[in-house]
Amino acid sequence: MTLPALTRPDLSRYFPILQWSKTYDRETLTSDLVAAVIVTIMLIPQSLAYALLAGLPAEMGLYASILPLIAYAVFGTSRALAVGPVAVVSLMTAAAVGNLAVQGTAEYIAAAITLAFISGVILTVMGLFRLGFIANFLSHPVIAGFITASGVLIATSQFKHILGVDAHGHTLVDLAASLFENQHLTNPITLFIGLGTVAFLFWVRKGLKPLLLATGLKPRLADILAKAGPVGAVVITTLATWAFGLADKGVKIVGEVPMGLPPLTLPSFSADLWGSLFVSALLISIIGFVESVSVAQTLAAKKRQRIVPDQELIGLGTSNIAAAMSGGYPVTGGFARSVVNFDAGAETPAAGAFTAVGILLAALLLTPLLYFLPQATLAATIIVAVLSLVDFSILTRTWSYSKVDFTAVAATIFLTLTLGVEVGVSAGVILSVGLFLYKTSRPHVAEVGLVPGTQHFRNILRHEVITHPNVVTLRIDESLYFANARFLEDYLVDRVICDQPIRHVVLMCSAVNEIDMSALESLEAINHRLSDMDITLHLSEVKGPVMDRLKRSHFLDDLTGRVFLSQYDAMQALTPKHETG
Amino acid sequence: MTLPALTRPDLSRYFPILQWSKTYDRETLTSDLVAAVIVTIMLIPQSLAYALLAGLPAEMGLYASILPLIAYAVFGTSRALAVGPVAVVSLMTAAAVGNLAVQGTAEYIAAAITLAFISGVILTVMGLFRLGFIANFLSHPVIAGFITASGVLIATSQFKHILGVDAHGHTLVDLAASLFENQHLTNPITLFIGLGTVAFLFWVRKGLKPLLLATGLKPRLADILAKAGPVGAVVITTLATWAFGLADKGVKIVGEVPMGLPPLTLPSFSADLWGSLFVSALLISIIGFVESVSVAQTLAAKKRQRIVPDQELIGLGTSNIAAAMSGGYPVTGGFARSVVNFDAGAETPAAGAFTAVGILLAALLLTPLLYFLPQATLAATIIVAVLSLVDFSILTRTWSYSKVDFTAVAATIFLTLTLGVEVGVSAGVILSVGLFLYKTSRPHVAEVGLVPGTQHFRNILRHEVITHPNVVTLRIDESLYFANARFLEDYLVDRVICDQPIRHVVLMCSAVNEIDMSALESLEAINHRLSDMDITLHLSEVKGPVMDRLKRSHFLDDLTGRVFLSQYDAMQALTPKHETG
Repeated sequence: MTLPALTRPDLSRYFPILQWSKTYDRETLTSDLVAAVIVTIMLIPQSLAYALLAGLPAEMGLYASILPLIAYAVFGTSRALAVGPVAVVSLMTAAAVGNLAVQGTAEYIAAAITLAFISGVILTVMGLFRLGFIANFLSHPVIAGFITASGVLIATSQFKHILGVDAHGHTLVDLAASLFENQHLTNPITLFIGLGTVAFLFWVRKGLKPLLLATGLKPRLADILAKAGPVGAVVITTLATWAFGLADKGVKIVGEVPMGLPPLTLPSFSADLWGSLFVSALLISIIGFVESVSVAQTLAAKKRQRIVPDQELIGLGTSNIAAAMSGGYPVTGGFARSVVNFDAGAETPAAGAFTAVGILLAALLLTPLLYFLPQATLAATIIVAVLSLVDFSILTRTWSYSKVDFTAVAATIFLTLTLGVEVGVSAGVILSVGLFLYKTSRPHVAEVGLVPGTQHFRNILRHEVITHPNVVTLRIDESLYFANARFLEDYLVDRVICDQPIRHVVLMCSAVNEIDMSALESLEAINHRLSDMDITLHLSEVKGPVMDRLKRSHFLDDLTGRVFLSQYDAMQALTPKHETG
Repeated sequence: MTLPALTRPDLSRYFPILQWSKTYDRETLTSDLVAAVIVTIMLIPQSLAYALLAGLPAEMGLYASILPLIAYAVFGTSRALAVGPVAVVSLMTAAAVGNLAVQGTAEYIAAAITLAFISGVILTVMGLFRLGFIANFLSHPVIAGFITASGVLIATSQFKHILGVDAHGHTLVDLAASLFENQHLTNPITLFIGLGTVAFLFWVRKGLKPLLLATGLKPRLADILAKAGPVGAVVITTLATWAFGLADKGVKIVGEVPMGLPPLTLPSFSADLWGSLFVSALLISIIGFVESVSVAQTLAAKKRQRIVPDQELIGLGTSNIAAAMSGGYPVTGGFARSVVNFDAGAETPAAGAFTAVGILLAALLLTPLLYFLPQATLAATIIVAVLSLVDFSILTRTWSYSKVDFTAVAATIFLTLTLGVEVGVSAGVILSVGLFLYKTSRPHVAEVGLVPGTQHFRNILRHEVITHPNVVTLRIDESLYFANARFLEDYLVDRVICDQPIRHVVLMCSAVNEIDMSALESLEAINHRLSDMDITLHLSEVKGPVMDRLKRSHFLDDLTGRVFLSQYDAMQALTPKHETG
């Protein structure tokens, strides 16, 4: 009797599909179907384009948009997230795999598939062990800077397709040098198609919807038509290329895309390959997760829904494993397409599954029609898509708010552009953590006095306060731990040595959230040294959890002074009444 | 006129010798000379023994105790620190160089010399850039655990010399397996010499001084004689080995030690070698610096002197460069010999320079006498010396005080023993930092109320306090930064959603020492979401530096509520007077 009751909640935790499928009805189905059609139309050119960005055959973009979406529909918790190949992860895939194999070889493809598999395993394991908090160590500004720099890199990398020349490299310098070297080979017709498509797509984005609305079209339909802009560009340029025989005039085309079901593929299990790809897979996993979960949370908040980050890891992990099994490459939740999915009315992850069916039909039926599609058209759709990610204002915003954040962002952007995505994002994380630790290792210490007429103590340098020459009260604005233990020791002794009448030192611990073993030893040393100078050490406003721990050590027995509940009590006890008023 | 005044203080900052040499007189000279004689006697057997521990020819220990001491006398700031080869650094040298070359080869020696040079460069550069604070990231418990585990490893590694068998390995398991495999080859005479010396040295340490005092000797002389115990063991066993021809009976001896001045040597500048040794050199530098600086600080505090950690880095850096130039290997300040130096009355670093002269004389004159010195004797002096470093009580002390510290120590000890010194100490540092970050990423949040009769607010779960149903006050016990920004968002919304009558949320920021850009964005999101629920967000007790920064953002303009100087002001303003009394 109790067994089902016990196991069921657990099952639906790991299979969110069991929750929402129970109340699935005809109305939800309609909403999901409409959203799926719109996202499918948007996803077809994007999938092809991002696969080319990753240096992979176009069809791998389609394959990565089928089975992974089904897996996410089963395991994901977001109702609106649309999973598939995205720009930044495609760029990172190219950087990771490009180190190991040459584009266009079977090794390159196998490495991309294996990368998806390793990333899937990492995400799933992180989800099972509830390690989602690791993503918190990517600070918002570092992510913003990384995405901006990636957008610039991606747009630059696509210029070669617009010019119709060869160019290589994973950094801005390499790409620019390579483009400059080959620019005399520019194919004018390709350039015309590329720039024309860019202009057309920008116009579609800004100008088409108002025009359609002006002709009396319903807003919803106008929206859908505007989103179909890239499909329009694909159709027009493909027809033009076919009709005028532009492929013979040097316009590079997508060429033969195999027709049929996604193939069953297996990742390589070579220890060497796993070793070379592991760090890249970890970075891709974390970046993909952070990007995906922040979109999902934004959309969920709008409908007062909740997503479960640790289950999201499992959703994205299984999606990537599914990608590796079906000829795809690393995927994650995409920003633009999830917003479209949400706006189009998707109610449940079933919309994603229907999108998968749409892409499957495209893979089965439409691929021969893509033969004459110019690569310049796809490059143009990528450029227009990623330029919306580029936002250098994070530099000015952090500059005015916090130089530490600015340093981390500036380093992330600079290193991503000059040394590539992996160095850039790793440096951003390491620098954020390092600067945080450095700050906490040299804490702010304020000497405080009583604000007249209150029981409140503030910095003597910032407020008019009452102090007493025999008592110095220092408020330490940081937890005490190994990195600042020695700092406190030096600071206190320096402060006390130069000031003769001091008889009592009070450490006001309202901001001390932790005293670790190293800091405890430093406090013992401070107590000892002050006692040698005939100065008594007191503590005030020690928090419950900190006090609990101090009671388990010898420190309170050896302390020359007392522990006061409040700083006001301390001041009352240590100074003659008439002096502090 | 102004030029000398400007440059002189700077020069004496980098050359502390310019400070103490000015007041150097005959009395100081006598004190320094006496200390130098005692330390020289102690250092001769130790230098030989530690060189063997590092897998190097015995004379390199002597060479490492000459020029480095002169360099430290010029650049160091501690008056009592005795520099030279030490046990832990010798073990780390063996581990680092043992990965690259076979003991006894010219490559092995060249690598050890290069290691000293790289370590010297790292220390000097750290000193010039004032990076001494990096050492703070080694927590006290991690150092204690590492030294204990290293002591165990060193003692175990010396057992082979006591048994007179071959054994290899840098981990406890390898060493034990290797000893067990070869134990049937044990040489009984070697074993007798080894165990006899161990017993003798323990007796000298515990029993000799009281005995000498009982015979009426002056305490000072008794002390010196007790310290000369290892020299006594060296003399006795060398004579016995020579007289009874024990070398022919399988007792391994030191053999020929070249007589003469230290050779002029140069490190290798091969990029490959530097690449392979860099991480090891960094670890050796930091461990050596931490060990040395803590001894120096302890001794300086006893005489109210001060050491300058960043200048200490330069002192140790130049010592290591000097070691590399004169056939030595990595050195640092030793604990035992510095204490002896201090107790013997050393007043200035000149005592170190005199010790160098003593060792130089030994290298010039005494080396032929060391020919028949059994290796077992040296091993016994090492074992007795390092066993005083072994102190597992750090495990029980951290267990009762802080599980986080315990985890870091236990991992350091376990990994040092099983995977070697470099993995052990790296894991200790990474784990300490990681656990600190993890703790700060899930901060303690206390709901607080007014302690009756005061203006002081404490945790409602720990104290009898006054609260108001419409107002919830949360004291966040941590700085707000990227790692906990999302946590706060989730925590607050969860707390507020389930409690209907809440109209005001006050964040009491007395423990918030920093709000970075990520946390600012989270606060903006919180403000927005609470406003959607018709709840007003207030802040109280925001510190000066935090407030300065908030004023530079839009947050205060968008904040639905107010910022109160004190929590008491907030409570007064937000609740009807009669209810809070």
